[in-house]
Amino acid sequence: MSIPVFYEPNPIASPFLSEEESIHAHRVLRLKSGDPIFILNGIGQKFEAKIDQSTSKKTTFHLLKEIENSALPAYSIHLWIAPTKQMERMEWMVEKCAEFGIQSIGFFHSRYSERKEIKTHRLEKIVVSALKQSKNLFLPNIYPIISFKELVKQLSNKEHEQKLFAYISNPPSPSLSKSIQQNQAYHILIGPEGDFSTEESAALLASDWTPFSLGKAILRTETAGLAATHAIHLLHEN
Amino acid sequence: MSIPVFYEPNPIASPFLSEEESIHAHRVLRLKSGDPIFILNGIGQKFEAKIDQSTSKKTTFHLLKEIENSALPAYSIHLWIAPTKQMERMEWMVEKCAEFGIQSIGFFHSRYSERKEIKTHRLEKIVVSALKQSKNLFLPNIYPIISFKELVKQLSNKEHEQKLFAYISNPPSPSLSKSIQQNQAYHILIGPEGDFSTEESAALLASDWTPFSLGKAILRTETAGLAATHAIHLLHEN
Repeated sequence: MSIPVFYEPNPIASPFLSEEESIHAHRVLRLKSGDPIFILNGIGQKFEAKIDQSTSKKTTFHLLKEIENSALPAYSIHLWIAPTKQMERMEWMVEKCAEFGIQSIGFFHSRYSERKEIKTHRLEKIVVSALKQSKNLFLPNIYPIISFKELVKQLSNKEHEQKLFAYISNPPSPSLSKSIQQNQAYHILIGPEGDFSTEESAALLASDWTPFSLGKAILRTETAGLAATHAIHLLHEN
Repeated sequence: MSIPVFYEPNPIASPFLSEEESIHAHRVLRLKSGDPIFILNGIGQKFEAKIDQSTSKKTTFHLLKEIENSALPAYSIHLWIAPTKQMERMEWMVEKCAEFGIQSIGFFHSRYSERKEIKTHRLEKIVVSALKQSKNLFLPNIYPIISFKELVKQLSNKEHEQKLFAYISNPPSPSLSKSIQQNQAYHILIGPEGDFSTEESAALLASDWTPFSLGKAILRTETAGLAATHAIHLLHEN
């Protein structure tokens, strides 16, 4: 059996698993004192560790050694997306983006949004699970929903980061391969299924946001978020 | 309201909708005689049409004119994948591949497959729905499950098409961008979560199959199928 992997953000100061992770260790995997485990801290480090004691409330461990320590990648992807009506579609998109690797996923509501509220707890569990499965070392941040206006305002001071929004226009906007410079922090904005309103698009075009196209096919919102994330990774492939 | 789109493979010889499409036209959209619709035939044509009569058993129409007629793209993607245990994961992958555009999706079972059988009816409904939503003009073919051996044998005579399989190795195989020539028919083989067996990989490596890597992160089976499809499209972007 392969050695199980757990997530604990601060394994040096807090050498025990969360209640959720403990339940998994104790009830599902039935780990016992002395069993080997891996610990990810979600910010680039992976440790070898051994279980000290395991109950379904709290599993304690001690670290043996650090086996990976990765610097942040030279580029980062921040996805800002208007959530779909069916939350399931956002859940799988978050899982896939976390598998590919992403710095953060945040949500916004705009004029034609079908959903103005979301709960992030399930999404936080999904990114932890994708972290463990994908062997990535960085846990994506999940941000709660804010308004389109607030989001644009918050990002307005990020002058040295690349801000791009998916825009369906005729003639089509350039693709990401033509729009991005290498090794930047990218903010990718994906509007709701009903698209941005004319005023919203105009506000983005009038500021420092660059429109981009994802190709000829009309993609669903969640597919667009995934496609943009994947495209940026491919554009940084060695 | 935008004009609704329907799929009918042979609208000239059979100017009526299937029972499934008729139910949608009659009960959901409540279309009546004289209402305008679009018809996709799934092989490159789109027609303007008008409803003649609509019941939930059969909706008849007459074609007004052909408004799009697209030649097959210069490249085609044929995905062959070992289905995941949770059929839901295959369903969304099929939806996403159909949104991006794909020629066919077929299934196989191999030594470490978790699922040896699948029903394709739901997948056929999903690709029709993705066709209508994405504005693509070609309906992907869905093929039933066969064995790994049968699949490799069936494709062995396709000497002029590119055959590639996702392969996790150390050092990693080249990425798709380094493995594919432009404008080919691509057969992409994605193994089960438990991977190909040593014998299966050896058989592929010994024949005319080229191994490729999808990057550093370990992707789930369904994510790998989606990522390969999307990557090939991006490599053909103008």
